[in-house]
Amino acid sequence: MLVGIGPGSTDHMTARARAAIAEADTIIGYVTYIKLVADLIEGKEIIRKSMTEELDRAIESLARAREGKKVALISSGDAGVYGMAGPTFEVLFQAGWTPPAFDENGVVEPGGIEVEIVPGASALNSCAARVGAPLTHDFCAISLSDLLTPWPTIARRLDAAAMADFVVALYNPKSGRRTRQIEEAQRLFLRHRSPDTPVAIVKSAYRRRERIEFATLATMCDADIGMLSTVLIGNSNTIVQHGLMVTPRGYANKYDVEGGGATREGERPGRSLSTGLNGWLENLQMDHAAGESIEALALRHRLPADYIRDTLAQPLAIAEAAAAATEEEA
Amino acid sequence: MLVGIGPGSTDHMTARARAAIAEADTIIGYVTYIKLVADLIEGKEIIRKSMTEELDRAIESLARAREGKKVALISSGDAGVYGMAGPTFEVLFQAGWTPPAFDENGVVEPGGIEVEIVPGASALNSCAARVGAPLTHDFCAISLSDLLTPWPTIARRLDAAAMADFVVALYNPKSGRRTRQIEEAQRLFLRHRSPDTPVAIVKSAYRRRERIEFATLATMCDADIGMLSTVLIGNSNTIVQHGLMVTPRGYANKYDVEGGGATREGERPGRSLSTGLNGWLENLQMDHAAGESIEALALRHRLPADYIRDTLAQPLAIAEAAAAATEEEA
Repeated sequence: MLVGIGPGSTDHMTARARAAIAEADTIIGYVTYIKLVADLIEGKEIIRKSMTEELDRAIESLARAREGKKVALISSGDAGVYGMAGPTFEVLFQAGWTPPAFDENGVVEPGGIEVEIVPGASALNSCAARVGAPLTHDFCAISLSDLLTPWPTIARRLDAAAMADFVVALYNPKSGRRTRQIEEAQRLFLRHRSPDTPVAIVKSAYRRRERIEFATLATMCDADIGMLSTVLIGNSNTIVQHGLMVTPRGYANKYDVEGGGATREGERPGRSLSTGLNGWLENLQMDHAAGESIEALALRHRLPADYIRDTLAQPLAIAEAAAAATEEEA
Repeated sequence: MLVGIGPGSTDHMTARARAAIAEADTIIGYVTYIKLVADLIEGKEIIRKSMTEELDRAIESLARAREGKKVALISSGDAGVYGMAGPTFEVLFQAGWTPPAFDENGVVEPGGIEVEIVPGASALNSCAARVGAPLTHDFCAISLSDLLTPWPTIARRLDAAAMADFVVALYNPKSGRRTRQIEEAQRLFLRHRSPDTPVAIVKSAYRRRERIEFATLATMCDADIGMLSTVLIGNSNTIVQHGLMVTPRGYANKYDVEGGGATREGERPGRSLSTGLNGWLENLQMDHAAGESIEALALRHRLPADYIRDTLAQPLAIAEAAAAATEEEA
C-alpha cells in the first residue's frame, strides 16, 4: 500500500490512509514521514530510510511483501505526486512483478502481490488551502530538483508555464546545495510575467512550524525558502487581498460582477463564452476573410501560425455542436 | 468552511472534511455532491444548487454565515482546485468581507466571519492513483471548459504543455455541448507529441460507476469521455505496462537501473545530475567558447535564444553553490 498521508497533520489524512497504516504489518518510509504518523504505528515493524534511499524503500517493500507481509510505504502529501508510487512501480516492473490474479471472492491468488495507491492532498493542495484560492484556474507543478532531471528540461517547462500564464507550484525549490535554481526560475518567469505577480511561499503547511510568506516575482528570492517550502506563483490575474492569494475563475468575463451580476451582452449563462471555441472559430474565419493574414492572427491570439493555418483549413463543426445535447454547465 | 470531499467515497475524505460537515448547521452544494455525503448530513439545513449556480452557492453561504450559521460549502475533490474556494473569495471581497479579528483565546470577535479551506484529493490525485503513477514528474491541470475562459487562452496552455513535455490532466474535457474542445486539444498535442503517447480516461474514480480506459494520443477521442471524466496524457517517457500508466522519475538518468543499480559514470548519489543546472552552465560556457553560436545552443537545448544569451552573460555561481550546505537529497 503506497500511502499518501497528506500534509502531515492527522486531521488532513484520509480515512483510507489511516486504515491502510492500521492494517499494515510493516511501515517503510523516510524518517521524517515516519515521525508524522508515530502515534499510529505502535507494535509494527518500522523501516526508516534516509532521503536518498527512495529505490531502497521500494526494494525493501517488495522483499517484505514477498515474505507475506502487508506493507505500508509512506509518502507525505500524495503518494502519486512526486511520491513513492512511481519509483515503486519502476522497481516492481524491473523485478518482474505482474498484477495478481483474484479468485471468485476477490481474494488475491497465492503468490500474488496486490498494489494499492492511497491518494491524499499533495503539497500544492495543502499550501493553496493555507493561502487562499490560488489554484482556481489552470496550474502546473514543476520540481526544481535537478538530481534526476537535466536543467534544460526544467528550464523549458518554466519558460512554457510562464509564457502560457499558468499558476505554478514549485516543488523542491531550494536546498542547501541547490540555491541558484530558484533564481533561474525567477529570471525565466520575468521574461513573460510582471515583477508584481503575487508569489506565496509556504513552509510546512499544517505542521507545527508552518510559515506563510507573501512576495512578488521581483522579491521572491529574498524570502525564506528551503527543502520544506512550496512556492506558488500566481497568473496574470491572481490578486492578494487581505492576506489572501486568489486567482479569479473568470466570472468577470461573463457577468458584470461589479454591477449586480447581470450577464454581459452577447454572453449566455451555462454556455460557452462568445470568445470560446466556437465563437473564436467563427471570428477567426471572418477576420481572415476580411483580409487579416495568418501571421497577424497568430500574433494577435498569441498562438502558433501553423495552428491558425490548420484551423482555418478545417470545416467548422458549429452546426454539429449546436445540435448536441441539452446539458448545462457553470 | 469550504470542504473538499475528495473523489466521493467517504474512505477518501479527510478527517477534517468529515468533522467540518459534522460541525456545520447548513450544508450548501451542487446536488450531486450533496448526494455523495448524504449519510453525514441528517438533521442539517441542506441547500441544493444546480451546476450553473456557483456564485449563488457562495452568496447563499455568506448570507447564512451572517445569520450566525456555521456553513459547509461542499466541493468534490479539492475545494481549491477548480473548486468553490475561488468563487467564494470573489463574492466575499465583493461584499466587503474582511478576515475576522480573534480575541486572546483565539475566538472570532463578534460580527466576524472566519473562512476555512479544507483541502482534499482533487480529480488528478484520485485518477492518478487509479491508473498507476502518471504524475511522478512535472504536470499541468488544464480545464477545457470555455464557459468562462476564452479559447486562445486554453489553446496557448495546451500548446505550451505539449511542447514542454508536461504530463497533463484535462478537467472538464467534454460535455453534451462542448464536443470539439477535446479534438482541438488532441490536434494541438499531436503537433509536439508522438501519436503513441499513453492516455488514460478515468470516469468517476472511486465511485460506483468508475470506469478506466487506456488509449493513445491518436485514439483518445474515440474513448467514452464525458462530464465526469478526467483525461490524463502522459509525457514522452510515460509507459503503460500490465495495465498501469507510469511516468518514470528519471532514475535511469543517474543509475544503471537495468544493470544492478550502480551510479552512472560522472554522476553522484544525492547530487545534481552532470546535466543539472551547474553542469549545464559549465558546458554551455565551454561549448560557446568552442565556437557554438547562441542560436545553435538555443536550438540544441530547445530554449529561447535570449535566455541562452543572458545566461552566458551572467557570472557562474558554482563556487558559491559548492560552498553551500551539506544537506543531501534523493
